[in-house]
Amino acid sequence: MSHIIAKYQLHNNPSKIDTIAEKLAVGLTVGSWTDLTAEDQAHLEKYKGEVITKEIIDAEKGLLHIAIAYPEHNITPDFSSILTTVFGKLSLDGKVKLFDIDFTDYSKHFKGPAFGVEGVRDLLNIYDRPLVMSIFKGIIGRDASFFEAQLRAQALSVDIIKDDEILYDVPELPFEERITIGKRVLDEIFEATGRRVLYAVNLSGPVFELPDKARKAKQLGANALLFNVHTYGLDALKGLRDLALNLPILAHPALSGALGGSPDYGISYQLLLSKLTRLAGADLILFPVPYGSIELTEDDAKSIVAHALEASTIKQAFPVPSAGVHPGLVKRIIDDFGEDIVINAGGGVHGHPDGATAGGEAFHEAIRHYKTGVGGKHYDKAVALWGTS
Amino acid sequence: MSHIIAKYQLHNNPSKIDTIAEKLAVGLTVGSWTDLTAEDQAHLEKYKGEVITKEIIDAEKGLLHIAIAYPEHNITPDFSSILTTVFGKLSLDGKVKLFDIDFTDYSKHFKGPAFGVEGVRDLLNIYDRPLVMSIFKGIIGRDASFFEAQLRAQALSVDIIKDDEILYDVPELPFEERITIGKRVLDEIFEATGRRVLYAVNLSGPVFELPDKARKAKQLGANALLFNVHTYGLDALKGLRDLALNLPILAHPALSGALGGSPDYGISYQLLLSKLTRLAGADLILFPVPYGSIELTEDDAKSIVAHALEASTIKQAFPVPSAGVHPGLVKRIIDDFGEDIVINAGGGVHGHPDGATAGGEAFHEAIRHYKTGVGGKHYDKAVALWGTS
Repeated sequence: MSHIIAKYQLHNNPSKIDTIAEKLAVGLTVGSWTDLTAEDQAHLEKYKGEVITKEIIDAEKGLLHIAIAYPEHNITPDFSSILTTVFGKLSLDGKVKLFDIDFTDYSKHFKGPAFGVEGVRDLLNIYDRPLVMSIFKGIIGRDASFFEAQLRAQALSVDIIKDDEILYDVPELPFEERITIGKRVLDEIFEATGRRVLYAVNLSGPVFELPDKARKAKQLGANALLFNVHTYGLDALKGLRDLALNLPILAHPALSGALGGSPDYGISYQLLLSKLTRLAGADLILFPVPYGSIELTEDDAKSIVAHALEASTIKQAFPVPSAGVHPGLVKRIIDDFGEDIVINAGGGVHGHPDGATAGGEAFHEAIRHYKTGVGGKHYDKAVALWGTS
Repeated sequence: MSHIIAKYQLHNNPSKIDTIAEKLAVGLTVGSWTDLTAEDQAHLEKYKGEVITKEIIDAEKGLLHIAIAYPEHNITPDFSSILTTVFGKLSLDGKVKLFDIDFTDYSKHFKGPAFGVEGVRDLLNIYDRPLVMSIFKGIIGRDASFFEAQLRAQALSVDIIKDDEILYDVPELPFEERITIGKRVLDEIFEATGRRVLYAVNLSGPVFELPDKARKAKQLGANALLFNVHTYGLDALKGLRDLALNLPILAHPALSGALGGSPDYGISYQLLLSKLTRLAGADLILFPVPYGSIELTEDDAKSIVAHALEASTIKQAFPVPSAGVHPGLVKRIIDDFGEDIVINAGGGVHGHPDGATAGGEAFHEAIRHYKTGVGGKHYDKAVALWGTS
């Protein structure tokens, strides 16, 4: 029998760990057990949750780890059902954190990334280094000509450009217009240089309109999508993946701190941002570096990368360290996360003394500096400005 | 100009409150301000966020309250965009909790409950008392005959029956079969007694299939829907509401503890479970009573009820106190939350010594006891078993 195994960290009375664990296994499945008839027990045996492990981590603090196996056939293969069973009611029950879910073979229902690390490298024809991504800067309230100029400046040096996640389908700069301009500019650059660049347009709006909008994006020539997966729920990402549009999807971590930030409540970042987001079909997974402008622990960041890349029947997702990144951090980022990453920056590209194109170049030079010891003038200027830590 | 005003509780350095507040107002809108040209500033003025209030609540603990007004035209009228702007990146930035959102007139885009308190009372023709709801018990792994018997036993005495939120569209007991049986049983009871009962079937499965499944439910004769709104995201609830199927929607709080449980991170329960869920279109809002089987503070519970019922341009949502409720708690529940509520129980109905029908009756007797001092034998048996607190 196949199971979904959920692992929890709880704060509760250690002397009650047996009762607590059994209450989860029964309460989140068949409801009751000891008061059932033998006949009912025989019938319901295969629907009952099982306690896999229960461990007192810190008796004084009342810190417990409990793992429960839920029969796969209790649950339908969508993320709402999975999360409702393993953490629906339980999430409301005091200090409890869902820190992992293991799927025995349930993941057969989930295709995972369509492209992943290899597929994105194939699209760009770059195999020997981390990729460089940049985001638009100060784009809210701007029009098409501003957008086009900023897109071009970035596209002349970086590999992937992503929309600002707070830029929606607004009259000043509509979704379809961004795609059309993006295609034209990137095609021109390809004609001129032979270099492919991805532009991930932010797929936003009412949730039930997303499939049609994604199809429209493909038709209009978009070559990647940005998606705020955690404001829509993981199942929306899975649904987009299942459309098989042949477009890489960048998963943005917006709102995920509300679920992952607390050490005692919610869902661990490694599970939410990485394992489940990869399973749902993200090709690229953005997360904050632990030494940038946003708070995330080094352990969390490394665990996110490990889960994005670990061997599996599904493709690897590309980890995208982000937020407060500048060329002087490239060495540390590669040392921490390896070369199968996409280094992403906003201010660290646009804030370069010689502009965004030079800012993108500075990242390439930083990577070259890491690999060969030879940097370049753009990198030197960036380091002079931002330092190396 | 219309705004969306978000209110945050932060833990940070009180001496930096001005910088922090300004960073939010600018960073989550136009990106930068002081380094813009006068021309750019003039153009972007109407896109820039504004600090509305900033208050040091506890200097020693570094507890700050900050309210930011985001221009409405930065945001499209869907919950993903709202949450991405006001709490997307910010949710990841250390100890910060989103505790309220005010809409100046943005709520014109949101229809709110189709039925609400009055509409649900009209459907049931009950105006003078709290309603009584019960949930299926031990339904996982069971078949249609078990379902029908338990539905009938409940329907003979309660006003509303809801699916177990962990019962999905499974082969043992498919969604469509539950609706068909439900319609037949409830029609029979109406024929025999003239009494209308609602059965809220759990609308589940892949998110993009939900509109079609909801339409199918309506066609097959469903008279209410249960929806795990927080595993799908608020925008899915709004999308279902916008279908105008003329079916009341019960919003279940599953997974909401992952967002609302922590005092320092995430989104306040009053905002998440009540204000936004009502705005998105929930007719009934389930929440745990603070003295039942699940942990929730009394302040949170009262605030949830207040936001569900407060005067507004949209209809009131029916608060549904739940989890560990038995007839002996009815007095306390009405004292705490008033009579415009739906009292919901599982074990407190099914665990009655004389069965589920008697269990439902015991709740009616408890309400009568509260209002007139006259209880009844079912109530007495319940109190003998569970007490009154």
